[in-house]
Amino acid sequence: MSDDTLERYRQSIDNIDAALVFMLAERFKITQAVGRYKAERALPPADPAREDRQIARLRQLASDARLDPDFTEKFLRFIINEVIRHHQTLQPTMTG
Amino acid sequence: MSDDTLERYRQSIDNIDAALVFMLAERFKITQAVGRYKAERALPPADPAREDRQIARLRQLASDARLDPDFTEKFLRFIINEVIRHHQTLQPTMTG
Repeated sequence: MSDDTLERYRQSIDNIDAALVFMLAERFKITQAVGRYKAERALPPADPAREDRQIARLRQLASDARLDPDFTEKFLRFIINEVIRHHQTLQPTMTG
Repeated sequence: MSDDTLERYRQSIDNIDAALVFMLAERFKITQAVGRYKAERALPPADPAREDRQIARLRQLASDARLDPDFTEKFLRFIINEVIRHHQTLQPTMTG
């Protein structure tokens, strides 16, 4: 790649992607702790009201940042589906 | 919610989710700039070798952070699919 402008863009994308991966790793550490905590206490695994609040909040943040709110909601559901998959070996919890 | 421990976990999840949304907003700003840049110069929109390098790098970063590499690859493809959708009004570019 000899195009300096494109290479600079790509370095920024790569930096952001690394940050996203490390943030996601931290998020899953927390949701796994939530899963264990709920399982130990026999708390209900899913909390649809919590999930609705998360989605509404992230849609607003997305608007503020000029990110598509529909995409952001899809993104959160993508993450939550992975949380559910993780928790299938514990007592399942939907949203952390 | 009267459970302080659960509430603290949730505040951390909410903080991380806000960071993810703002990072994603910035990433899409860059990929949109890449799309415009490539379209102006009639550069090829897709670069499969670049995409392969991105995936290999993120899988390694995920392993380092104890995040599932398969999930991380799915995550990157989820983002790239959105980039493609954005660029369907320009000349499409796969990976930025």
